[in-house]
Formats: sequence, C-alpha cells, structure tokens
Amino acid sequence: MEQDTIAAISTPIGEGAIAIVRLSGEEAIIIADRFYRGRKALTDVESHTIQYGKIYDPEREEVIEEVMVSVMKAPRTFTRENIVEINCHGGLMSVNRVLELAITHGARLAEPGEFTKRAFLNGRIDLSQAEAVMDMIRAKTDKAMNVAMGQMQGRLSKLVQGLRQELLEMIAQVEVNIDYPEYDAEEMTHQLLIEKSEEIKKEIEKLLVTSRQGKILREGLATVIIGRPNVGKSSLLNSLVHENKAIVTDIPGTTRDVIEEYVNVRGVPLQLIDTAGIRETEDIVEKMGVERSRQVLKKADLILYLINYNEVLSDEDLRLFDAIKDMDAIIVINKTDLEQRIDLEKVKQLAGNRPVLTTSLLKEEGIDELEQAISGLFYDQGLEGNDLTYVSNTRHITLLIQAKKAIEDAMNAIEANMPVDMAQIDIRRTWELLGEIVGDTVSDSLIDQLFSQFCLGK
Amino acid sequence: MEQDTIAAISTPIGEGAIAIVRLSGEEAIIIADRFYRGRKALTDVESHTIQYGKIYDPEREEVIEEVMVSVMKAPRTFTRENIVEINCHGGLMSVNRVLELAITHGARLAEPGEFTKRAFLNGRIDLSQAEAVMDMIRAKTDKAMNVAMGQMQGRLSKLVQGLRQELLEMIAQVEVNIDYPEYDAEEMTHQLLIEKSEEIKKEIEKLLVTSRQGKILREGLATVIIGRPNVGKSSLLNSLVHENKAIVTDIPGTTRDVIEEYVNVRGVPLQLIDTAGIRETEDIVEKMGVERSRQVLKKADLILYLINYNEVLSDEDLRLFDAIKDMDAIIVINKTDLEQRIDLEKVKQLAGNRPVLTTSLLKEEGIDELEQAISGLFYDQGLEGNDLTYVSNTRHITLLIQAKKAIEDAMNAIEANMPVDMAQIDIRRTWELLGEIVGDTVSDSLIDQLFSQFCLGK
Repeated sequence: MEQDTIAAISTPIGEGAIAIVRLSGEEAIIIADRFYRGRKALTDVESHTIQYGKIYDPEREEVIEEVMVSVMKAPRTFTRENIVEINCHGGLMSVNRVLELAITHGARLAEPGEFTKRAFLNGRIDLSQAEAVMDMIRAKTDKAMNVAMGQMQGRLSKLVQGLRQELLEMIAQVEVNIDYPEYDAEEMTHQLLIEKSEEIKKEIEKLLVTSRQGKILREGLATVIIGRPNVGKSSLLNSLVHENKAIVTDIPGTTRDVIEEYVNVRGVPLQLIDTAGIRETEDIVEKMGVERSRQVLKKADLILYLINYNEVLSDEDLRLFDAIKDMDAIIVINKTDLEQRIDLEKVKQLAGNRPVLTTSLLKEEGIDELEQAISGLFYDQGLEGNDLTYVSNTRHITLLIQAKKAIEDAMNAIEANMPVDMAQIDIRRTWELLGEIVGDTVSDSLIDQLFSQFCLGK
Repeated sequence: MEQDTIAAISTPIGEGAIAIVRLSGEEAIIIADRFYRGRKALTDVESHTIQYGKIYDPEREEVIEEVMVSVMKAPRTFTRENIVEINCHGGLMSVNRVLELAITHGARLAEPGEFTKRAFLNGRIDLSQAEAVMDMIRAKTDKAMNVAMGQMQGRLSKLVQGLRQELLEMIAQVEVNIDYPEYDAEEMTHQLLIEKSEEIKKEIEKLLVTSRQGKILREGLATVIIGRPNVGKSSLLNSLVHENKAIVTDIPGTTRDVIEEYVNVRGVPLQLIDTAGIRETEDIVEKMGVERSRQVLKKADLILYLINYNEVLSDEDLRLFDAIKDMDAIIVINKTDLEQRIDLEKVKQLAGNRPVLTTSLLKEEGIDELEQAISGLFYDQGLEGNDLTYVSNTRHITLLIQAKKAIEDAMNAIEANMPVDMAQIDIRRTWELLGEIVGDTVSDSLIDQLFSQFCLGK
C-alpha cells in the first residue's frame, strides 16, 4: 500500500460549472483541512458527507473559493484510501490554485491513472476492471459502453477467475497424485486431464468468439470507401454521417488536427478512414495511387466498394475487386436512378459471398439496406445478447490466444504420453497467462505502462 | 419560485476522470431515484450525504454507470432547491445517457446559467454575486479571481445596499416633511439634502476610481505592440510570452481559430491584440496600412511602442508618435547592444509624461524594467490593497456612472431652488440605478439576457 497522498484535477480542463480537485491517501483529510475553513474541521466530520466551506490560502491570507467538499473515509472508497473531493466553481484559475494549495500542504501531484492504480493495488478492482474504467470514458457507442460496464463490474474477471480456479485444482490434483501415490485422492488419469483441458480450451474459445466484435465495439470498425471517380463516394460518406450520429473524438495527447470520425450505424461504430482525403479529392484511390491505397486497404476492417450502375465494368473496377480480394466488403452499386449498363451477374460473381446492394444516393434509396448489411456483418455470428461477455481489449485477446495455445500444448504432451510434469508446466502457464488478464500475475512495469495511458485525475 | 426540476452536465465537455450530471428542483431527488439503484433509496437518505450506487435504465434493463450521488436537500443548497449531483466515471457516452435518463424521468434540460439564476431568484445571492460566479470561471489572473471572489462574497452588494439604504432614508424623510409638515421630524433642509447627496456622490466616485483597474483585471489590458519593421516587435512579444505564464483562452461559442492570448505580467493580464498578425508579418502597421492600424490602436488600453536605438528618428517614427497621441503608452528603445544613433532627449520630449525605457531584447536586458513599468501603469493610483472593492463589470460601471449623474441632477435641482419633489425624482432614480446592480430593480428580460451568457450546467 502506497503511503503518500496524491492530488489532481479530476474534471476535464475547460470552462465549466464544476471543477474537482481530488485527494487520495492516508493524509487526504488532514491535508485538505489545512486550507479549508468551514463550520467543522474536515477531520471531525462523518464519512460520506458533503461540507460547505471556503478554501483559504493561509500564506497569502486570502479566501480563494467557496466550495463543497466531499469527505470519504477508507475503506469504503474508490481507492480504499481516504478521499477528499473539492468541488470548485469551475474555471482554470481557481481549480489550479486549489490544487497548488493541496501540493504545498503535503500532497503529491498524481500521475495519470494513479487513483485507479491505487484502486487496483489496494485490491478494490482487478486489472481488467481498471482497464474497463478507461474504456468507459472512451466508449464511442452505447453498446461499447455496455461492454465496458460489464467488464468494469467484473463479468470477464469472474469467468477468467473461474477458469483459473479449475486449472489450479487440476495442478493440485496432479501434484497430489505424483507426490503421494498412496493417498486416496481421485487419480488424474491422462483421460481425465485431457477432458478437463478440453473443457477449459472450449471456454477460452467461447470468449475469443466475441473478441472480434468486442474489439470493433471498443476501437471502431475501420472502414474505407473505394470506387472510381464520380461514383458517389462523397455522397455515401455524407449519407452515413448525416443519417447517423457522428462521433468526432479528440485523441488525447495529439494535436487537434488528428481527429478520427466515427459514425454510429445501428450500434456499430464505423471509423471512417481518411475521410478528409475523400472529401477533398473525391477520390482516395485516384489521389494516392494504387500502391498507397493498398496500404490503406490493409488497415481496413470493412470496405464499402461503390460501382456505377450506369456504366459497364471497367478494368479499374476489376483491379479494385482484385485489391479487396479476401477482405470484408459490401459492394454498393449506385445510381439506380440512371439506366442500367452494369452486368449485375458479373458483379455478384466477383463479389463471391459478400453482399451486393443497389442504391440511388441521389434519391436517398437503399441506404437502410446498406446499414442493415453493415450491422449484419458485425452481428454475423448471432452475438446479440446483452449478457454476452465481450472481450474487447487487444491485451486480453492476445493473452487468451496464448492461453489457448498453452492448454493445447498440455493436451499434446499428455496425448504423446510424456511425463505428467511436462503437461503440468503448460497447465501452470495457462493459469499464469489468464492471471495476467486480471492482474494477478503481472509485472510492475506492465502495470505502470497500462496506467500511464489513463487520463490525469482518474 | 420555479417549480420544475432542471438537469444538465455541469463539468466541462471532454475526456476526464469525473463528469457530473446536476439536478435541481423540488423533484430532483424523486426523479434521480427513478433510475438509481443503491443500498437505500435516495429519498430515504440524509441531506448532504454521498451514496454509492448504480444508474439503471429501467426501459432497457441495463446498468449504465457506477456512480457516487450527492444528495443535498433544500434550503441549504446553491439554488435553495433540492439538488442531486450524479458523479459519473467520465466520458461523453455515459454522462449523456445519465442526463437522458434524468430528462426522460421528469427533469427538463437546464438553460445556460439556470442553476445560478435560480440561486438569484430564490434569494440566495444577488445579481452582482451571480455575475461574479461567471467572472470566477473566466478569471485570467489570481488578482482577477480575488476580485470576483470578493464580489461573489457580497462585498460590492454590501456597499451598494448601504448607499441605497441612505437614499431610501432621504426619500422617506423628504416625504414626511412634505406630507406632514406639522410632524416633529428632523427637517430635510436644502442644506442637509445637499450634504447627504454629496456624501453619496463621493461614495459612488470612490467605487468608480477602481473601475478602470477592475475592468482590466476582468477583461485584460488590451495591448498593442507597434514600431517600424525589424525593431524587435516579435522578440518583445516572445519575451513577454515566455517569461510569463501565457494564458490561452478559448472564447466559448466561437471557433477554435479565435483565440485570445493573455500574458500575466505581475498580476496584470495583458491581452495581446493581433499577435498572430505580428508573428506572421513581423509588422502590424506595415501590414494593415495606417488607417486600419489606427482602428486597432483605438481599441488598445496600452501601447508598447518600440524605437530603434541604433537609428535616427524617422518620419515614420514621428507619424507613430502622432498616432498614439493622448494614449497610454510605454516607449521602449530597443537594441542598446548596438551603437546609439537615436536622440534620446527628443524621444523623451515626444513621450511627454509617458515612460521611456531602454532594452536589449537580444541580450535580454531591460525586460524586468518594462514589466515594472507595465504594472506601475496599472497600479498608478496606489490601488494595491487586497481589501479594495474593485468594480469590474461594465454593466456595474455604467450604472454607477448613471447613478452619479442622477445624484448630481438632484443636487443641481436643489441648488436651483426647484421644488423638492423634483429632486426627489432624481434621488429615487439614483436608488433604482443602484438597485439594478444587485438586481432588486431589474427587468426580467435583462435577467434572462445576463444568465444566457453563462455556461451550461452553471
């Protein structure tokens, strides 16, 4: 347990009605009391109460703010330490001066994510729950928020800890069998070990099934619109943006120039790649040349490929089909308001099992069907339940894949009739990998790195 | 007293650790309880306590957030109504959904400033105090914050109400004398009326003495740097910005392109006008032509006029002296690292009683003296006391000037031996004008207009 008291501004920086300076640590209440003047000393008030008072700079003998102070005593707090939240009138000046007073009176400036880190280190939440806190803040759609919320409430932790418990029992059992063969315990036969391992592998696979969807919900479905000039790429982009709620997100730590544009299509966050480029030049492929556009395409989770209903398939169309071979794509044949010149059968053949739709963006026809197709692609595995545990975090997905590999290794060792100690190593490794998800078996440097990505004051 | 319950997001919009949805009104607690799940119903908890619980969407049967809820019961609250503050994990999605739940369960979206407006309408603060709340948020220096704080605590209100009380007593006395000449009251002789009016006039003047400083603290000292090309305007700007804390303020409601740059020079906020222009072209006068630069100069409170130590005074220098005739200016003779060619005596003569300094911005010499001169100009009337009541708000200043005029009119009427009823009208008008400062005698439309300039959630 860390001993010093930390302080930070916990509300976003900007002009607002309320700004909060938060302190956490053993001395939080004592420190705050040094520059607070109210009816009672903060050290004398009940836990979980709100006090009205003034912030007073003893050195300059000035009243700085009228505040509401929330006092929450350990252990029933977010960090399990004493917490004081000083609720200021807002405005950069006053909140900064209150923070300065906290620092000069004994607190230390908190690092990014340090409050949540303490909640983790003090055992209030595990690592996957801590990560969900940040996902909550950055969620781009309702559904992404629900996924983060489920994770924050420990849904993933519970499943992972369940698997770890089973693994631990397997390990213990095997050890008993090895060390005390005379002991009257259920024997872990090869057959039983394989059965149990198979069960665990299936559970991990079940979690991984949701990972693609989870990752998309968390990070957005990277989408690129392609097609020949004047086929309506700009119109499609505008339709998607205008019909749906556009979510423009500032990426923290970068300049304002780097803005990602998200569109919420029936709960699926579409991240439209290089839309600025499309808007300016009306043609991403034309502008960037074939080679560079292939690079962009590679990063895409979904291609929206527009083809002109009013023209015959050109060589360029065929080249584009070639470029998106084996990729998730929806083929949109636009301009049905004009005469048909396209060979629909040929397009369907080139599309393979990918959806082919017709639209008239001019007449605003076919957009519903397109949105349906997009959300259909996302939900293609029937993963619609609200109570599903989505794995959304790349770190978790990687660990699950490694854990699956480790348990498979164990099974192979057993089937190859190798000594049970060998399988034991792989089973233990599976247990450790799953432990990294919840933070039980994880290095300090990884913890530091994870929390440093949090925002200040969290 | 307004009857409906209002709700708004009270923290700045952006990525942060904490976001707050605030409700105020008779039904605030009942409404919040409709989508809150905790150990106790919010309607059953003590006032001024903090509850840990969950926000639950009954319609979609989903947990939306883990929250800390502050419950504050009327009348010991900011608005004197029941207040609930829902402290969310931050992030736009979740805070917006909590606000939506508040709206769908009976609250109305608050207008900008409506919480503070209710505090005013319900008599918790007067109008000048309400205005100070916004000044607090927008304060650009410590001193400006202190001025706003003093006003928020009712310092100006007390002085103004004192004057109004005296005026009311004068009015009552005169009326008694007129209506009941036989009544044994102290007679308000012309002499006595003049003496009392004179006292009030002096008090108003005393307040107005601080108004220039107050306004500067609140709005910044609009400063323009002028001088011939290559005299060092850009260097001076950079020195001021780098040596001092630059305060870059976003003006709410405008695009991000419109950014005012403030520099805090010894507590005086300098608002550097058209600094972008200087940076780009190195020469505001050259760029804009004489006529337009005169327009810019007109808006300035302070001119920093740079002259080259290494050159003789040119015709252009003389034209610039002419352009800033009768304006507050500091003449800065730069490049003392080079040979002297300037006629210092001539410059001092042209400067009149305005300060003339020498600097070598290249060698970083003379900058301290310049900052001293700037703060000296500001504090020229010896207004340094912390307990001084600064009048900072243009609305208040205008009303004080009108009130001074009205009491002078009263004195003139009395001295001209006009019927005492005539003076009475002017005295009453003085009382009313002062009443507008604190909001006792003010129209609904003015109130609406004032509060509409507040930020949302305040």
